[in-house]
Amino acid sequence: MTQSGSPSRGAGRGSRRAVPVGHAVMRSANLSLLLRHLHTRGGRSRATLAQETGLSKAAVTSLVGDLAERGLVQEGELERRGTVGRPGTEVRIAPHHVAGIGVELNVDYLAVCLLDLSGEVRFSTQVPTPYELDDGAPEGRAYPPALLLDGVAEQLRVSLAAAEREGLWVSGITVAPPGPIDYEGSSVRLASNLGWADVPLGEELAARLGPDHPELALENDAKLSALAEAPRLARRGITDLVYLTGDIGVGAGIIAGGRLVRGWSGFSGEVGHIGLDPAGERCRCGRRGCWETMVGFGTVLAVLDEDDPARSGRLPMAERLARIRTLLDAEDPRLQQRFTSLVDDLVRGVGVLVDVLNPQAIVLGGYFGHFADLLVGPVQSALDARLLAADGRVEVSGSVLGLDAAAAGGAAVALERVLEDPLLAPVLPA
Amino acid sequence: MTQSGSPSRGAGRGSRRAVPVGHAVMRSANLSLLLRHLHTRGGRSRATLAQETGLSKAAVTSLVGDLAERGLVQEGELERRGTVGRPGTEVRIAPHHVAGIGVELNVDYLAVCLLDLSGEVRFSTQVPTPYELDDGAPEGRAYPPALLLDGVAEQLRVSLAAAEREGLWVSGITVAPPGPIDYEGSSVRLASNLGWADVPLGEELAARLGPDHPELALENDAKLSALAEAPRLARRGITDLVYLTGDIGVGAGIIAGGRLVRGWSGFSGEVGHIGLDPAGERCRCGRRGCWETMVGFGTVLAVLDEDDPARSGRLPMAERLARIRTLLDAEDPRLQQRFTSLVDDLVRGVGVLVDVLNPQAIVLGGYFGHFADLLVGPVQSALDARLLAADGRVEVSGSVLGLDAAAAGGAAVALERVLEDPLLAPVLPA
Repeated sequence: MTQSGSPSRGAGRGSRRAVPVGHAVMRSANLSLLLRHLHTRGGRSRATLAQETGLSKAAVTSLVGDLAERGLVQEGELERRGTVGRPGTEVRIAPHHVAGIGVELNVDYLAVCLLDLSGEVRFSTQVPTPYELDDGAPEGRAYPPALLLDGVAEQLRVSLAAAEREGLWVSGITVAPPGPIDYEGSSVRLASNLGWADVPLGEELAARLGPDHPELALENDAKLSALAEAPRLARRGITDLVYLTGDIGVGAGIIAGGRLVRGWSGFSGEVGHIGLDPAGERCRCGRRGCWETMVGFGTVLAVLDEDDPARSGRLPMAERLARIRTLLDAEDPRLQQRFTSLVDDLVRGVGVLVDVLNPQAIVLGGYFGHFADLLVGPVQSALDARLLAADGRVEVSGSVLGLDAAAAGGAAVALERVLEDPLLAPVLPA
Repeated sequence: MTQSGSPSRGAGRGSRRAVPVGHAVMRSANLSLLLRHLHTRGGRSRATLAQETGLSKAAVTSLVGDLAERGLVQEGELERRGTVGRPGTEVRIAPHHVAGIGVELNVDYLAVCLLDLSGEVRFSTQVPTPYELDDGAPEGRAYPPALLLDGVAEQLRVSLAAAEREGLWVSGITVAPPGPIDYEGSSVRLASNLGWADVPLGEELAARLGPDHPELALENDAKLSALAEAPRLARRGITDLVYLTGDIGVGAGIIAGGRLVRGWSGFSGEVGHIGLDPAGERCRCGRRGCWETMVGFGTVLAVLDEDDPARSGRLPMAERLARIRTLLDAEDPRLQQRFTSLVDDLVRGVGVLVDVLNPQAIVLGGYFGHFADLLVGPVQSALDARLLAADGRVEVSGSVLGLDAAAAGGAAVALERVLEDPLLAPVLPA
C-alpha cells in the first residue's frame, strides 16, 4: 500500500535527479522514454522513433524488443511518411496486455474503471452504494464502513475478473475516497458526508482482496479528475489547469507546469471553505461566506420544492441532474435565477484561483460540468472582463468525462507506474 | 536573453524526461548530481560521495576531477567519520571561482547581490533610485526608464568589476523588475508604481552591458524571494511554501513540491487583488475588497500624520520602517490598532492560500517580515485555530533575508544554471 505515486511530488529543487545514472538506470529510463513517447504521440516506425527521441536506431530496435516481450508495444501497420526509403513497420502501444483500475467511492455510487494502456476503457461499472441513508438526515449517522468496503471489494473483484478474462495484467488500483486522505496511514480521515473518521481504507481493502492484489493507492477525487482531464489539454500544450468538482462540497485539482500540486500533506485544493464574504451565509464549518455556501450543489437543491425527487439522495446523481435539467428546460424561475447568480458566485472563487495560480484552463466538473452549456460562456466572459493582461487569459470548459472523471483518472494514475518503470510488467509466456 | 530558466517549469506529465540518456548526457547528469550533492549537503570525502550517490568510487574520482578543473570544487580538510580505514580528503564547493548576480529594481532602491557558489555574498549594494517622484503623486507620472536603466547598468558594471577583481566567473544575472514580466519578450509590462508599460528591460540592459555580458534573465520579485528563502526551509524537509511580499502591493511566491509554481504566463501569486469582501473598500483596480486594500503598506501609512516622514517615498524603505517602529515603541494608538487588525486581515488571505495550496510554511516578507515580532505569533495562532486536520498545520515565520531577499534569490537562480550544467563553467587556466 502506497500513496498515489504519480505524478511524483517532484524532487526538491537542488535534487531534481536524486539517483545516479548507471547503465541499468539508463536502460530503464530509455525504455520509459520510448513507451511514454508512443503513449503520448501514437504509433510510429522505429526510424521515426530514433529521429524524434535522439536514440540510435540500434538502441530503439533493442528497446522496442524489450517492450514487446512484456506486451507493452506491438507491430502495427506500415508507416508511410514522405516518399523516400521503404516504409517502416509501425510500433504502437499494445492494447491487450496491461491495464490500470480506478475506483471512485462516493456517497451515492461506486464507479470503477478498467483502462488499458492504449487508453481504451475495457470495463466500467457504476453501482449504487449498498446502504441507504435516510434522506435529509445524513449528519450524525455513520455509514457503516464494513458494508461499503465489502461493496467496493466486490466491485474490484468483478473488475479484476474482467481483466483476467481479457488477459490484462493490472498494474495498480487507485481509489478515490469521499474525503481527506491520511496519506501516511492510507486511511480516510473525515468523510463528513458518510460520518466516517479514520477508516483505514487501504488496509481494509487490501485485506478483502487477498494477498496477490495489485498495488493499491489512495488519491483525492478532484486530483484524479484533474489528471484524467489533463491529457486532453496537454495535447494542446496546456500544462497549467484547475479542475473544479461541483457537488455538495467543492474541491479543486491543480496541475501546475504539468505536475499535480498535492500540497505538503495532500490537502491542496480544499477550496470549498475559502472565505469570500465576511457578511455571507453561515457554513457547516462554522465560518461565514465559504465558497461552498455560494456554489455547492446544496444551493441548487435549496430552491427546489421540499418533495422534489432531485433532492433525494436515494436517486442516482445522473437522475437527479436530469430532473433539474427538465425543470430548467421548463423555465422554472427559481432555478433560472439560481443559475444566473451561480455564474457570479463561481467567478468570485475562480477569480481567486486564477490570481493565485495563473492557470491556462479551468475545467468545470461535477454538476458544474453537467450544466456546462449554461455556465461556461458567462463564466468565461466574466473572467475575460477582469483580466489585467491579455496573456493571462484563462480558458473555461466543461469536463468531458463527467461523473466518471475520478475513476478514469485513478486508472490512468495506476498505469503511470508501468510508464515510469516498464520493467514492472511481466514478460509474456513465449 | 532568456526567461529565468530555473527551477524549470517542469516537463509535462508523461514526458518527465524528454531527452534520451546517452553517454554524454549521462556524464553531464552525474556531474550535476555530484555538484548539487556537495552544494546541498556540504563537503565530504570521495568515498562518502560514492556511498551516498550510488556512483562507483572510480566514477566519483573522475567526475570530481572534471569539476575541480572548472573551479567548481576543491580539496578540503581530512574527513574523519567512524574509525575504520584511513580518513579521506574532503571535497567541497570551491568558493572562489563561480558566482551569480541578482538585481532587484524597486521604486525606492536598487539592490544588487553577488553570490558565490558556496553561498557567500561577495558583494552587495543598495542604492537609492536616481530619480525622485513627487511625494503623494506617483500616479500618472512616468519614471523615465532610460534614467533608471542607466542606473541599473551602472550598478551591474560595478558588480561585474567586483567579480572580476575577485576572480569570479559570473554564470548569469537575474533581474527582478517592479511589475509583471512579459516572459516571451523580456519586457516589464505594467509597473504601475513607476508609470511604465512595455519597457524592454532585458534588451535595454543587454545593450548597455555590451556584447560579453553574462546571460540575463527576468523574474518576479516574490518568486525570487521565495527561491531565496527555500533552502533554509528545505534543510528541514519543507518543500511546499508561500512567500508573501508586503509593500504597497502584495504578492506571493509559491513553491510546491520543491518547484516554483510560475503559472502558464508567469503571473502566479498575484494575490493583491483577490476579492475577499464584496462590501469592502474600493481598490485602485476598480473592484471592491481586494486583499491589498486590507493589508498593503498603504493601510499602515494611512494612519500616520499627513506630514509623517515615514509617508515620504524620498526616504529609503529601511528608514521609513525604522520610523514606524519608533512610533510603535512609543505606543502610538492608531498604529497599534492597525497592527492588531492587520493580523485578522492577513489571516483572511493567508487562509485562502493555505486552503488552495496546503503549504507547510508561510514566510512573511517585505514590511510584514520587518514586523514579524508583532505578526508571526498571532497569525500562527489564528491559522492553527481554523485548522480542519492536525497534519495540515502550516508554520509561519518572518523572512530572514529582509529587503535583500529578491536580489539574493536572483543570484541563486543565476547559479542554478551551472548547478544544472557544470560544463558551462570555463576550464581554469592550468
